[in-house]
Amino acid sequence: MSVKTEFDLINYIKKSFDLKAIGDDCAVLPASGETDLLITADLLIEDIDFTLSSTSAADLGHKALAVSLSDIAAMGGRPTWALLTIGFPQPLWETNFVEQFYHGWNALAAEFAVELVGGDISRSPDRLVIDSIVAGYVPKGSAVLRSGAKAGDAIFVSGSLGAAAGGLKLLQNSVTATGAAVESQKYLIDRQLRPVPRVQLGQRLREENLATSMIDLSDGLSSDLHHICEASSVGARVDASLLPIDKDAIAEFGADEALKLTLNGGEDFELLFTVSPEKISAVPSDAATRIGTIIKTTDGVKLIDADSTVDLQPSGYRHF
Amino acid sequence: MSVKTEFDLINYIKKSFDLKAIGDDCAVLPASGETDLLITADLLIEDIDFTLSSTSAADLGHKALAVSLSDIAAMGGRPTWALLTIGFPQPLWETNFVEQFYHGWNALAAEFAVELVGGDISRSPDRLVIDSIVAGYVPKGSAVLRSGAKAGDAIFVSGSLGAAAGGLKLLQNSVTATGAAVESQKYLIDRQLRPVPRVQLGQRLREENLATSMIDLSDGLSSDLHHICEASSVGARVDASLLPIDKDAIAEFGADEALKLTLNGGEDFELLFTVSPEKISAVPSDAATRIGTIIKTTDGVKLIDADSTVDLQPSGYRHF
Repeated sequence: MSVKTEFDLINYIKKSFDLKAIGDDCAVLPASGETDLLITADLLIEDIDFTLSSTSAADLGHKALAVSLSDIAAMGGRPTWALLTIGFPQPLWETNFVEQFYHGWNALAAEFAVELVGGDISRSPDRLVIDSIVAGYVPKGSAVLRSGAKAGDAIFVSGSLGAAAGGLKLLQNSVTATGAAVESQKYLIDRQLRPVPRVQLGQRLREENLATSMIDLSDGLSSDLHHICEASSVGARVDASLLPIDKDAIAEFGADEALKLTLNGGEDFELLFTVSPEKISAVPSDAATRIGTIIKTTDGVKLIDADSTVDLQPSGYRHF
Repeated sequence: MSVKTEFDLINYIKKSFDLKAIGDDCAVLPASGETDLLITADLLIEDIDFTLSSTSAADLGHKALAVSLSDIAAMGGRPTWALLTIGFPQPLWETNFVEQFYHGWNALAAEFAVELVGGDISRSPDRLVIDSIVAGYVPKGSAVLRSGAKAGDAIFVSGSLGAAAGGLKLLQNSVTATGAAVESQKYLIDRQLRPVPRVQLGQRLREENLATSMIDLSDGLSSDLHHICEASSVGARVDASLLPIDKDAIAEFGADEALKLTLNGGEDFELLFTVSPEKISAVPSDAATRIGTIIKTTDGVKLIDADSTVDLQPSGYRHF
């Protein structure tokens, strides 16, 4: 059998078990007559998703929660409670790693009034394993899905892009935030290790009914835009000159490399969303930048540069 | 710092973060005006909780779901939906392991109409990692907790005990169900690899308001009885002659060893529950056996044998 990607497996599971709920950032479940429950799980495995040599325990606790909060944000939800499942190798158990991890987790949880209600703890033979589960709520039927984009909608993205991938590149080159790094390097590393989930923005876009579709940038703009296009059966045209590429990423790596980090790097945990033409002016301009337009699916997913138009291939992070 | 047990860590987390919800089989959360949501997570890590040499992919899928369904059963819940998070090592990805795992998982899910709504899938460097999350519902305020036992209540247990631990012992001695094992050995191994969660019994005990407290036997009778006694601030007296020790476990290992497997072995996933005196006769006698009586906390947790009374120490399975 040929090597399968994560996407292949998810598709297999969806097909086999008729899973309509899988395929968005969170599962959406009826919670009561008035509300829907959103729930998301994120598995982080040592030496795949992080290395202990380049993150502190507290930062890892922060990030484990942040990635799940970002999924709730991407559907416009209000995060409410969480489960945390951890497999610890024995050596970490004997240090203050556990306490520091929880302090990092809890500091972020407190910001959003997220309550830890359960989970599981076990020993792991050698590698640290974390499964972060966060639940949130939206008024019934109001979760912002990936599937609502329409030709003519404007494409927006929050914050600046490429910074988290830039920070990862620095860490992989053994630059650490505590070493000789300059301020801009520390900032890029911080974007990688301590992402800020856009919870308030996601809720505002849902409450004001501004976003026709939304996703968080975990895999990279190119992949995540494709997820929206596939779910919505549309194409997209992105103008490279409009991309809010992070200034420090450009300063550190140059414009060409920073563009690559933006398109394919992932982990910025910014929100990518679409807005129907009549509501474009209502999008808060300090929080998001217009980067392109949704087009017909037959027109593909394109990146327009000064002198060329190319197919934008999904090439973000893949586990396999 | 001294070596910490899982219980120490859970206590640390509870103390630090004021977690009233942690400490039962499931977290109990308000879902609507009429219902409470129960949710539980169980982490299974290769070479800690299972070995791939002694379980099939389908049996592992069954067990991953069964252990979580058992937690829902222990609170009297109706299981409803599930998340499944898996980290697969690359070699498994290239076989039909994934499909077989899901077939085993799904066959059990179908029995209880549990819907898979999400989860996460990732690559793992070397070991298979599974986090099984199951949610269920009970009418508001009706979840059966560990904390409701009162002095004078009768102690009951469902099914037969020691079989799952007996099966594990056989597997550790390289007896496999497909080898030269006799029928009784195959049965014991099956109890270890394919536990049956007592979902209907748990719901019936809750609906008929029969159980004052309940827990599932995952750690072993001695430990799990202590969990009830601690949560309820009571003691217990268990009559060894009343224990429904599995007949095949006795035949395979002898009476003394089968008693040890019953008290300390764990993973039977039967229900241990307490019943107030006036309701004892209402407990279905084909489903559960009375094994003792709840006493005052100052009288401790005792095991009464033909000619002695000993303190029953919690000595079930611990991860650390």
